[in-house]
Amino acid sequence: MAAARIKAAMKLVTAALVIIGNEILSGRTHDKNLPHIAVELNKIGIQLREVRVVPDIEAEIVDAVNAVRARYDYVFTTGGIGPTHDDITTASIAKAFGVPVVRSAEAEASLRAYIPAERVNAARLKMADVPQGATLVPNAVSAAPGFCMGNVYVMAGIPNIMQSMLAATIPYLKGGDSVGSLSVTTDLPEGTIADGLTAIQDKYPTVDIGSYPQFVNGKPQTTLVCRSMDTNMNKATMDEIYGMITALEGVILG
Amino acid sequence: MAAARIKAAMKLVTAALVIIGNEILSGRTHDKNLPHIAVELNKIGIQLREVRVVPDIEAEIVDAVNAVRARYDYVFTTGGIGPTHDDITTASIAKAFGVPVVRSAEAEASLRAYIPAERVNAARLKMADVPQGATLVPNAVSAAPGFCMGNVYVMAGIPNIMQSMLAATIPYLKGGDSVGSLSVTTDLPEGTIADGLTAIQDKYPTVDIGSYPQFVNGKPQTTLVCRSMDTNMNKATMDEIYGMITALEGVILG
Repeated sequence: MAAARIKAAMKLVTAALVIIGNEILSGRTHDKNLPHIAVELNKIGIQLREVRVVPDIEAEIVDAVNAVRARYDYVFTTGGIGPTHDDITTASIAKAFGVPVVRSAEAEASLRAYIPAERVNAARLKMADVPQGATLVPNAVSAAPGFCMGNVYVMAGIPNIMQSMLAATIPYLKGGDSVGSLSVTTDLPEGTIADGLTAIQDKYPTVDIGSYPQFVNGKPQTTLVCRSMDTNMNKATMDEIYGMITALEGVILG
Repeated sequence: MAAARIKAAMKLVTAALVIIGNEILSGRTHDKNLPHIAVELNKIGIQLREVRVVPDIEAEIVDAVNAVRARYDYVFTTGGIGPTHDDITTASIAKAFGVPVVRSAEAEASLRAYIPAERVNAARLKMADVPQGATLVPNAVSAAPGFCMGNVYVMAGIPNIMQSMLAATIPYLKGGDSVGSLSVTTDLPEGTIADGLTAIQDKYPTVDIGSYPQFVNGKPQTTLVCRSMDTNMNKATMDEIYGMITALEGVILG
């Protein structure tokens, strides 16, 4: 009897990111969190499928969070959980879930342990407020926690704090299969390889082939990226791409 | 009779940006277009109010574009207008508007003038396709145009090409009032100024006060940004913030 290799169905687990903050929309602050979150999530088999950037307006945050939490396995938010008047993420998430904001005794204890006693004030203690029913996400950098409410993970916007919160969260997330990535860069311009690439894409529908043109010293280059949960298919696809580049007398640049 | 200064109502003109591309969602490519678009639009009195990042999936692009074009005065998209199989923005925008994709004779002529004759092929000429009824947006860098369909402006994802297309588009957009911005950075942490800041925000509701904490060499700093269409109100608000910082014995760092 021929050996049968039974391949378990690939499991897709998805996420959305809601970036909260007028400073991103004004162009003043350049978001650095999206790529970090995308890469870290993929390591544990969670695919970032949508990102929304919304202003510091409660109704906008509520609508965005409610739209994506119904659609994706996980939602992450960044920004708006500090002590100032423009930090309205906690109240907005509570509203999205239809629950009140409550003071977390655990978060308050963490804050009081971190903040010098003479600096404890109402604004700083506001950072101990969470939607009723939320679970805390620890903040190893500056004590003020994030939180998890349903499938929504609320994190700070400052990159090193966000990274610390995401690292603390990762062990609790249930990922599926990771998407593996292979890439090659050639001196062939996109227009030269487009037809061959379409044929390869049609042959390997489970592999997502991306073509990314750039100009280096005025000369075109194209980076081709194969992404798939199936390592073997990904490798087979990239082999065909190498073959195509060679047939077109292209140079492999990296 | 006392002189009366009658202030015309501020005119708010809004925009959304749809960033199209798996490479942004995978974290492989870091978007650089959002801040540029936000800043350039504000110069002519258009406020970026929402950004969505969506994958190279037609239904996702259609849904995102249709959601935001109904809601904002202008929509800009970046990415997905090249010659390869994964460039599906043109077809998706046509679908969003319920029109067919047609070959633009003008765009084809531009491409044929730019591309060496021996390199002209079907894939490259695909870049002359636009939704029926679209107006071309010139590409001063590499000939393949963007286009405008209704209130949706479709641009390339490569930053220098996108910038060229946006510059060509700007003269045709009708802006409202620009939002002016004033900022100050202090060594006071957010938690110390939060209460005073709330009082100032309550006093000047037409000014959007943002508070952005950071750590420099391990020490907290806070940058306070006042944004408003009303220059006088913005100035008055910032004056009060300076007064608050001084009263709290904070140092002005910049």
